Amino acid sequence: MINIKLTIEYDGSRYYGWQKQPGLITVEGEIEKAIKKITKEEIKIYGSGRTDKGVHARGQIANFITNSKIPPNKIKEAVNNVLPKDISIKHSCIVSDDFHSRYHAKGKEYKYLIYNNRIRSSLLWKYTHHIPYALNINLMQKAAKEFIGTYDFASFMAKGSNKKNTVRTIYDLNINKNDKIIQVSVKGNGFLYKMVRTIVGTLLNVGRGYLDCNQIYDIIKSKDRRKAGKTAPAKGLYLEEVYYDSLKKKY
Amino acid sequence: MINIKLTIEYDGSRYYGWQKQPGLITVEGEIEKAIKKITKEEIKIYGSGRTDKGVHARGQIANFITNSKIPPNKIKEAVNNVLPKDISIKHSCIVSDDFHSRYHAKGKEYKYLIYNNRIRSSLLWKYTHHIPYALNINLMQKAAKEFIGTYDFASFMAKGSNKKNTVRTIYDLNINKNDKIIQVSVKGNGFLYKMVRTIVGTLLNVGRGYLDCNQIYDIIKSKDRRKAGKTAPAKGLYLEEVYYDSLKKKY
Repeated sequence: MINIKLTIEYDGSRYYGWQKQPGLITVEGEIEKAIKKITKEEIKIYGSGRTDKGVHARGQIANFITNSKIPPNKIKEAVNNVLPKDISIKHSCIVSDDFHSRYHAKGKEYKYLIYNNRIRSSLLWKYTHHIPYALNINLMQKAAKEFIGTYDFASFMAKGSNKKNTVRTIYDLNINKNDKIIQVSVKGNGFLYKMVRTIVGTLLNVGRGYLDCNQIYDIIKSKDRRKAGKTAPAKGLYLEEVYYDSLKKKY
Repeated sequence: MINIKLTIEYDGSRYYGWQKQPGLITVEGEIEKAIKKITKEEIKIYGSGRTDKGVHARGQIANFITNSKIPPNKIKEAVNNVLPKDISIKHSCIVSDDFHSRYHAKGKEYKYLIYNNRIRSSLLWKYTHHIPYALNINLMQKAAKEFIGTYDFASFMAKGSNKKNTVRTIYDLNINKNDKIIQVSVKGNGFLYKMVRTIVGTLLNVGRGYLDCNQIYDIIKSKDRRKAGKTAPAKGLYLEEVYYDSLKKKY
């Protein structure tokens, strides 16, 4: 019995999110099906966390226990051959028996892409959030810094979550603009349900001039979801990386 | 009666190419339908040329004659509102009555994107041609220069075309690599059926070491399609720009 860790990229457009659900097409479901096909075993995969319907990933992590004789680093090719084209295993390797993608995760990085142009992009509409009005990037960058630190982020958690501890640490939150694409990158030790998308929605309010940078701290303190901005749509969000070493060392 | 020129971007993945065909979903068909809906006229649009099934565009040009009272620069928003999300009008303006997108085109620029990595990209698989083996970019760049000039490009025309004059001028052919993406850009006064994709297929043979740079000229001279490389798949191809002023001035 060996424990295999997978690094996964997917285009979430077609999927009802990561988590298996009866009768619906999901990323977890497709990967399990593909691994069963190549190992001929009744395996179960453990993902680092769920992603919602329409969310993409460049670095989702999952692991599974197998008796397969396929060399660990060859598993990626074997699984890719039977996976749908919009899911791919970028890396596969053997890890210690006790490694668990979710329990051992120390942090995550997400990216959010905004297409900021009057006219929508037909090539990028499934991969970016289209904002047709002008945004003040400098103000957004200033507001972004207000999120960095350890806070109770209850104001940024969507309803429908049963998380009791809503304290999280954001290590870094950066905003860059390259031509028409605005990229928001956020690294933290964990994120509440729809937290990244709610932060992005709040930053968009700053960029549009509806909200002042120095109001961010008040919104966090209020622990009131209604004070934060709208949840930005799923299609702009990418799970970029899952960290298993302490993130703090990096900053 | 006014003549309106449109600049069009589309994700060709879902379409049976540009040209209207009975019972099939095409880009031309969708745009005509959208314009009819907003103008309530029986209009016909004239594209700068066809693109094949699966080919994308960032700068396709079309024009149409209308009696509509919608201000020309507002037509783009009105049409975008009723178009499918994977087609967008980037620009609309009034042009002289005799302007014709196809007859007056002086040249075109195409781009071709190659994803050069062992493992496929699930996010880019509909937008790039995946090449899993190593490519020698320097040799491809050297070979690219051999195509620049005025030649009979019959060796690079797919069967099924009835073009009699197969002489074309290529003004520029550049290859750049940025991380895993290789971009081939080609500008010319016109292109034969599947000519860009056949040039790319031939350059890939050079990159892989199957063909020598100095054989390109022999392939052109032979006027024999069998001597050139395989036609690269449609999904990597983008119609980037259509030129209406002489291209020669630019180089």
